[in-house]
Amino acid sequence: MGKGNQCLLGFDFKVFLMLSVALNVVLISKVLYQEDGDKVNKINMICLDSEGSKHGDAHVSRRRTLSYTTTSNTDVDVHNVEDNSGGDDVIIDLDHGNPAMYEEYWKQKGDEITVVIPGWQFISYFSDIKNICWFLEPEFAKQAIRLHNLVGNAVTQDRHIVVGTGSSQLYEAVLYALTTTDSPEPLSVVSAAPYYSAYPLQTNYRKSGLHRWAGDASNFSTDEPYVEVVTSPNNPDGSIRQAVAKGDKGIRIHDLAYYWPQYTPITHRADEDIMLFTISKSTGHAGSRIGWALVKDPEIAKKMTKYMEISTIGVSKDSQIRAARILQAVSDDYDSISNVNENERFFDYSYNFMVKRWKELKAAVDKSEKFSLPDLPPDTCTFSGQTFEPQPAFAWLKCEEETVDDCASFLRSHNILARAGKHFGASSKYVRISMLDTSYKFKILTERLSKLSSMKS
Amino acid sequence: MGKGNQCLLGFDFKVFLMLSVALNVVLISKVLYQEDGDKVNKINMICLDSEGSKHGDAHVSRRRTLSYTTTSNTDVDVHNVEDNSGGDDVIIDLDHGNPAMYEEYWKQKGDEITVVIPGWQFISYFSDIKNICWFLEPEFAKQAIRLHNLVGNAVTQDRHIVVGTGSSQLYEAVLYALTTTDSPEPLSVVSAAPYYSAYPLQTNYRKSGLHRWAGDASNFSTDEPYVEVVTSPNNPDGSIRQAVAKGDKGIRIHDLAYYWPQYTPITHRADEDIMLFTISKSTGHAGSRIGWALVKDPEIAKKMTKYMEISTIGVSKDSQIRAARILQAVSDDYDSISNVNENERFFDYSYNFMVKRWKELKAAVDKSEKFSLPDLPPDTCTFSGQTFEPQPAFAWLKCEEETVDDCASFLRSHNILARAGKHFGASSKYVRISMLDTSYKFKILTERLSKLSSMKS
Repeated sequence: MGKGNQCLLGFDFKVFLMLSVALNVVLISKVLYQEDGDKVNKINMICLDSEGSKHGDAHVSRRRTLSYTTTSNTDVDVHNVEDNSGGDDVIIDLDHGNPAMYEEYWKQKGDEITVVIPGWQFISYFSDIKNICWFLEPEFAKQAIRLHNLVGNAVTQDRHIVVGTGSSQLYEAVLYALTTTDSPEPLSVVSAAPYYSAYPLQTNYRKSGLHRWAGDASNFSTDEPYVEVVTSPNNPDGSIRQAVAKGDKGIRIHDLAYYWPQYTPITHRADEDIMLFTISKSTGHAGSRIGWALVKDPEIAKKMTKYMEISTIGVSKDSQIRAARILQAVSDDYDSISNVNENERFFDYSYNFMVKRWKELKAAVDKSEKFSLPDLPPDTCTFSGQTFEPQPAFAWLKCEEETVDDCASFLRSHNILARAGKHFGASSKYVRISMLDTSYKFKILTERLSKLSSMKS
Repeated sequence: MGKGNQCLLGFDFKVFLMLSVALNVVLISKVLYQEDGDKVNKINMICLDSEGSKHGDAHVSRRRTLSYTTTSNTDVDVHNVEDNSGGDDVIIDLDHGNPAMYEEYWKQKGDEITVVIPGWQFISYFSDIKNICWFLEPEFAKQAIRLHNLVGNAVTQDRHIVVGTGSSQLYEAVLYALTTTDSPEPLSVVSAAPYYSAYPLQTNYRKSGLHRWAGDASNFSTDEPYVEVVTSPNNPDGSIRQAVAKGDKGIRIHDLAYYWPQYTPITHRADEDIMLFTISKSTGHAGSRIGWALVKDPEIAKKMTKYMEISTIGVSKDSQIRAARILQAVSDDYDSISNVNENERFFDYSYNFMVKRWKELKAAVDKSEKFSLPDLPPDTCTFSGQTFEPQPAFAWLKCEEETVDDCASFLRSHNILARAGKHFGASSKYVRISMLDTSYKFKILTERLSKLSSMKS
């Protein structure tokens, strides 16, 4: 546990508490009691160690932590904290990419976007038996294509859509589709560092003989077949990526989860063989677990579908229908006949939101030379017409001071939880901080970073 | 393809057409054209070969097939067939367990069971961070427990609930939870034949070093640790099962998908370490992909949760909320204050429905000695108070004639698609036929079996 942890996707609420002896950390089963307060404050720590073989553990601390709520209203829990002044002893968890910031937007949209499902609907396993992906709801496929065509971020013609329980399942489905059981050696899977911290674990956790994680694509060269995951914009650093591994027999998976106009200028219609998207990051509906793949080769689409058939017999139809409704609402507001105010349209609203957050973060960090952020070149967005620098869903922060080797530990000591660089195959001088959390947590983050920046070394 | 096929879960629409040269079978990409008719009739064949390495293929036949509809109203497609008289050339597919028969019941319940989800809900990945299974919606957990307590089919006290994308995902989650990456040899997984046809494939398809399918539990004996899957009532034959493998280090997974009072007398509260359930078979909502596990050991529950975190980052909240609403409606009707007519209550309705179907099937089969069905002893149901013979979700039919070695092929030649016994680790003299499909298909089935029974050998 602790330093050795392999964090996944935001569910590793850094187990720093164990290391914090001075703060009288003790282990219990599930609930965190604030021993010195009047109120009980709860958190369940969910972590993966570096071997991927340990499961979630529960920890206790005297400190207060801004944890997630038990309802979908992520602000509720924050306000349940006895003292929400953001005092220095409040721990803010920005390790994972929970897209809480989108909730406010969808609340404003109100009942318009409500989905209604009668009890007799979706009894069947099947959605559309004419389709390779027989559990794909036609309405979801239609709205996904419509949105891509509106935004101009991906070619949808001559593509097969495969829907997944989030893009995580699709990643595993692609690996399954690209491998064969009769191969004597597992297929190597690489991605350029810093790479998404979940890829190594997702590739290896089943100890599969089909594929194995082979690390940083930048140093990878082979005559054998291999898979390269190209995440663009990249998680964690927001950079625009191309394949970099050296070899003639590479197959590429393009993870385009963040290729949406609130995060980065849309510069072209991506036209790759296998492209992954998710509503968790596009519209923020992480709880629905809906991702989709645009796949050129029907044989790959078939084998991905087969994977989903074996592992989960398809994907929730309720969530597909809901996702369709959400995507439809986004597109409708951009229709020429729409009367919706410009800033009430989803991508305008979320773009402006990210502009504001990045401005505030940069203002906090730029006060000194203690921290730095990636320098991402501006470009012109074909969707909005605006020229802007990428404003990623995560801040890839570097601790510049020579005395700070472990940026995550340093921030932890100031009650900021962020994911350590090593989980992304990068230096411990870096951390990944979510930019998509509640306004309350984000405010505390910028205040603290600002304070740290102003302090003398 | 064809005889060598490994069928999964009902998605292997037996590829008999390839063998049917007399009927001029040809392969095309996705669509089946009825060349000699006025109307086009479509089907997409989705199959797994015996190696689990091939994906769905599409086939064509001149014959008409009663395929599934593209909407959730499974009767629509049937009525789209030009001639719905059930003539001998209509192929009826009863290979898989799509629970279409439940649709009529839920339609009768009407708007009462409708679920409404506003656009801003379930943004978060998290449902309840106090719970080991942090993506489990509390309302779903509450209603699942309430229903178990009403029916009396499982102990829920001191159990952890882990929700899954159907019980398929939970099966894999349990295997992950029971194994360790540092074990030199994969753990053996067994189940007594005839066993559910999906288990071997689900255990082996990833070529995992963690576990491997080791076949029929009846012949299995070991000093090493192993896993035995106990399916009770059993799929395919409806029998009540106990663990049978010989060894001191066995861990048992109890798949209780069919332990509900419409299928079998409830005789006791199951009190096993790991019990799996699914709404696909309890209330018929297969499209929602919701299963749940009742788990005694918190460490196993944690590792199952971890599996779901890595593979799909949780389970659709929309479907959990909908499933909660469905389960609530079932329980509400049995409340003492409920005014609902007895036969309008879910388990009464579905019990009576199954009584009727089994009576009709037995009447059709008992006409001769060509076919036989399992002899399942009656018992008294603690839920209903009635004494009855099990009336399983599948008929495990045996072709008794000496001249018929391959019962599935024999039925295929009479345009009935059923899953061959070999896929369940049993003799080819057997087939599994779904008892849960539409009334229209079931009617054709009984008419044909009746006709076959009356024919002279």
